[in-house]
Amino acid sequence: MKHTWLLFMVIFSFCGICRAAATIKVDKIAPSYWWADMKNPELQILLYGNHISSSEVSLSGKGVILKEVVKQDNPNYLLLYIDLSEAEAQTFNIALKDGKKKLTIPYELKPRVRKGEDVKGFTSEDVLYLIMPDRFANGNPDNDIVEGMLENRVDRNDSFARHGGDLQGIADHLDYIADLGVTAIWLNPTQENDMKEGSYHGYAITDYYQLDRRLGSNEEFKTLVEKAHQKGLKVVMDMIFNHCGSENYLFKDKPSKEWFNFHSEYVQTSFKTASVMDVHASEYERKIATDGWFTSVMPDWNQRNRHVARYLIQNSIWWIEYTGINGIRQDTHPYADFDFMSEWCKEVLEEYPYFNIVGETWLNSNVLVSYWQKDSKLAAPRNSNLPTVMDFPLQSLMNQAFDEETGEWGGGLYKLYDYLTQDIVYADPMNLLVFFDNHDTSRFATTDEKAANLTRYKQAITFLLTTRGIPQIYYGTEILMTGDKGNGDGELRKDFPGGWQEDKINCFVPDGRTALQNEAFDFTRKLLNWRKGNKVLSHGTLKHYSISQGTYVYQRVYNGKSVVVIMNGTDSPQELSLKPYQEILPQPESIDFLSGKHVALTDKLSLKEREILILCF
Amino acid sequence: MKHTWLLFMVIFSFCGICRAAATIKVDKIAPSYWWADMKNPELQILLYGNHISSSEVSLSGKGVILKEVVKQDNPNYLLLYIDLSEAEAQTFNIALKDGKKKLTIPYELKPRVRKGEDVKGFTSEDVLYLIMPDRFANGNPDNDIVEGMLENRVDRNDSFARHGGDLQGIADHLDYIADLGVTAIWLNPTQENDMKEGSYHGYAITDYYQLDRRLGSNEEFKTLVEKAHQKGLKVVMDMIFNHCGSENYLFKDKPSKEWFNFHSEYVQTSFKTASVMDVHASEYERKIATDGWFTSVMPDWNQRNRHVARYLIQNSIWWIEYTGINGIRQDTHPYADFDFMSEWCKEVLEEYPYFNIVGETWLNSNVLVSYWQKDSKLAAPRNSNLPTVMDFPLQSLMNQAFDEETGEWGGGLYKLYDYLTQDIVYADPMNLLVFFDNHDTSRFATTDEKAANLTRYKQAITFLLTTRGIPQIYYGTEILMTGDKGNGDGELRKDFPGGWQEDKINCFVPDGRTALQNEAFDFTRKLLNWRKGNKVLSHGTLKHYSISQGTYVYQRVYNGKSVVVIMNGTDSPQELSLKPYQEILPQPESIDFLSGKHVALTDKLSLKEREILILCF
Repeated sequence: MKHTWLLFMVIFSFCGICRAAATIKVDKIAPSYWWADMKNPELQILLYGNHISSSEVSLSGKGVILKEVVKQDNPNYLLLYIDLSEAEAQTFNIALKDGKKKLTIPYELKPRVRKGEDVKGFTSEDVLYLIMPDRFANGNPDNDIVEGMLENRVDRNDSFARHGGDLQGIADHLDYIADLGVTAIWLNPTQENDMKEGSYHGYAITDYYQLDRRLGSNEEFKTLVEKAHQKGLKVVMDMIFNHCGSENYLFKDKPSKEWFNFHSEYVQTSFKTASVMDVHASEYERKIATDGWFTSVMPDWNQRNRHVARYLIQNSIWWIEYTGINGIRQDTHPYADFDFMSEWCKEVLEEYPYFNIVGETWLNSNVLVSYWQKDSKLAAPRNSNLPTVMDFPLQSLMNQAFDEETGEWGGGLYKLYDYLTQDIVYADPMNLLVFFDNHDTSRFATTDEKAANLTRYKQAITFLLTTRGIPQIYYGTEILMTGDKGNGDGELRKDFPGGWQEDKINCFVPDGRTALQNEAFDFTRKLLNWRKGNKVLSHGTLKHYSISQGTYVYQRVYNGKSVVVIMNGTDSPQELSLKPYQEILPQPESIDFLSGKHVALTDKLSLKEREILILCF
Repeated sequence: MKHTWLLFMVIFSFCGICRAAATIKVDKIAPSYWWADMKNPELQILLYGNHISSSEVSLSGKGVILKEVVKQDNPNYLLLYIDLSEAEAQTFNIALKDGKKKLTIPYELKPRVRKGEDVKGFTSEDVLYLIMPDRFANGNPDNDIVEGMLENRVDRNDSFARHGGDLQGIADHLDYIADLGVTAIWLNPTQENDMKEGSYHGYAITDYYQLDRRLGSNEEFKTLVEKAHQKGLKVVMDMIFNHCGSENYLFKDKPSKEWFNFHSEYVQTSFKTASVMDVHASEYERKIATDGWFTSVMPDWNQRNRHVARYLIQNSIWWIEYTGINGIRQDTHPYADFDFMSEWCKEVLEEYPYFNIVGETWLNSNVLVSYWQKDSKLAAPRNSNLPTVMDFPLQSLMNQAFDEETGEWGGGLYKLYDYLTQDIVYADPMNLLVFFDNHDTSRFATTDEKAANLTRYKQAITFLLTTRGIPQIYYGTEILMTGDKGNGDGELRKDFPGGWQEDKINCFVPDGRTALQNEAFDFTRKLLNWRKGNKVLSHGTLKHYSISQGTYVYQRVYNGKSVVVIMNGTDSPQELSLKPYQEILPQPESIDFLSGKHVALTDKLSLKEREILILCF
């Protein structure tokens, strides 16, 4: 926004509308514009400039009321709180006066381009495709290095460095993504990470209102969202409210020490966020978990400071209103202040009632994860207001279930059955994000040998796309990309082959893929395209059976239609007695969706080792 | 009761009060007497006799109103429902008339010997000592074999046979038990198990109103409870409402097929009782789990039949009122009908508000176990009304925790910490029964080698007696008895050495125990006697810390007093930084309760491998 704002200054100065005395300078204004007719009529405007706090502030605009001007310990800040209840779209003036020095800032209140109700969030009808923008495709080599940014190199041989992937690369492959059959993309953070090193992942934001220019401009991001929508793809933006990057101006020249936890001094978090929900937690554990910093270069926002809270909430609304995104994935959700996060979700969903937010609830049990979902019985009377939580316990189990023999009381698919029997703990099991890997975990295939085991993959992806919840796939899964966290995070975030002009292998096209990759891709594509628009799989109730003869059987049913999945979780053929399943097998025969073969549903069903049958009624 | 009743008949016949025509015979009357002034004024009397159902019934008694006479398909039964709202203690007559045949049965309504409020249940102030009566001590060899009972042999070399232990054996060792420091005994079932074989454990009841005569008489049981109370020991009775033994007259000559599930035909349960709480469970799974039979010789009560329900509820109240027991342990709690079990708990607790009931909630996750506890948020609006549930997940973890190295994110004591962080799932964590073994699990020491590892034992017993909940110890644990379930249930239920006259080793006395056993015994006794009456441990809130340097630290605090437990979960010495624990270490030094040694609480605390410190403030 800095550049845009300077441009404004120049234009208006020439026009003579703005009579800026040279000695009052405003370097940042956040947000740089806003909209009229938002449901929440309050607007915080943060002004940042050398010693501006001694200025008197006045506004001239129709229906624009200055409620409060707040100074911070640091004289370089002023916070304006404005009531827009009666304001229509317009450009009003913010006038600063310090003795004889003056500055007038024209501030635009845009008309809204969409109703809040028209912003449609992702739901269980969708499948999310997670992309790390730096590692997917380099559509614009010109922005690989941006003059003046701190990390000004690209090195694809260094997993810690930037590789040059960008929004243009994603835009170039939207057809590939849409054809695969997913219905939404979730991008790892795209806001500015102007850090010295290691910020290719995007989780160290240095300007919340500015896209990282190595990925593209704000306008490009908006255009990408529009293009994606045209192709039937929703877009989920990654946000981080727990911490920022240490090069953020709000930390480097912080308004006050109270904008960051531990009075802006680095204290390491314990990462033990169970203490938030733990009725036995000590004060020490509670504080260190949420107020401790994620790393020494990721200062921890103090969201209990009302100015910080308003800054972050407004920022997310700004991005939704500006771009029309369909959802937010909130990083390290339980590390931030519960009450603030709750208020944030509430405000976003008041403004955009059909929006969705998924929190990264990386906790190791369903009890702890469930606490963070909206309307959790366990959290009551507290309420996180967070509609979707990540089913990390299931993710862990999925990485065991398909490698083991399945028994009646343990092992293999039993683990999935056993876990799902506990879904009563969740306020809304259908609104859980389900996945078997992401950018922070080992990939489902940690080795080439595992990747070559297609029955394993087919069972996992079938389960993922037919069980309850909102499935998420990590880019490259469909071409069996491998990655073991034991070898470092870089291993989990390899470049998609074919995303760079110089790539010799191009997995975006069938000819560039191996036979094995094509088999995985085609299987995934077939399931995804079948799931698309299939209400039985997106909204159907789940009914399942305990393991019998190593086989897991479950049904989804919606509006009189049903899908039955039968999965042999053993390396042996099974003669499955069908007696227990009569209530879900309404016909004496069916066709397997996967193989097209005819299946007789009489006394016994012959299953090959690790066979999957999908029957539709 | 049969014998008592026949005696009555004889006496009254001679007295001429009862003019029984020889052709009306009543073989069973259940209950055989009752009390006036119970809170619930309704009484069900079950009459069993050859073709009695054609009899007309009338009552003569002051304020005794016959509300309903119910016939069953089987003509050998009559069920009377009587309103006692206005009845005082008295003996009234039940008159049967069938044409010219008559029978008059005097029925006693006793005055109550205690107020319901005076029956004190077990609480977290108690430690339960679980005894399998056939295997603890044989105090009366005369009752080893009872003429006319189906299994009329004793063989201590056969783990499936009866060994001769009895109530007299328990009575003989109440001093040993009280001296050990536990405050309650829980006896495996003592009601009649007149089965052909394998019923030494007591879980196949053939007459709910009759003590198994190989253990003792009803009167002996009542006397045992009184003696125990005199020694400060509460008594918990084991009850089984899910099933009975197939030799029970109510099954052999059943009132109707609808007294047992699956119309009294044997269908095996799946044992998968998670399906009761599983929101995704199929109808098939739900039915087979709870209505299926435990074994082919354990017919499954249909508690949805109101006559069965009333029979079982009254039976438990009869035993409480008759003996003054302090609690019931309900077998296979989730296998029975939820609504019935809920109603049962409610009625018992209305009659005896300070009573306690613990259900055998053998489920593998805290989510599932928690569902069964009174006021569970997850079960709402359903309510089990069951105050205490068994913490089986913790039992499983305790059998891993003390054998493993403890890490910051897994292994050893971390597992205990991690589990307890999820206690928000429980309506009342302080009312969980905690234990590391019982008669159905492997003993804590599965081998002699494990038994010899006293640091392992000391950590486990210390944790058990100082964490939240109501601890339960299995007989013989204090002398390091071993047992591995892999070798059969008999291994878990070995005879207590010294309980039989012929025993060469007597572990009831110090001289009979090895040095190792005495060390374990003394350690256990010291902790138990310290815990007795110690409100900090029974009622204190728990505050704990995540693992640091392999060490688990927690505090109990009550009314300004506190206990801090510091446990090194590694095989290495640790220099524990005390910085995190400042809020629970109010003094710069303390005395370790276990060793008596002085402990300086400055910067660092030197801990030996697997060391335990208990500090009191």
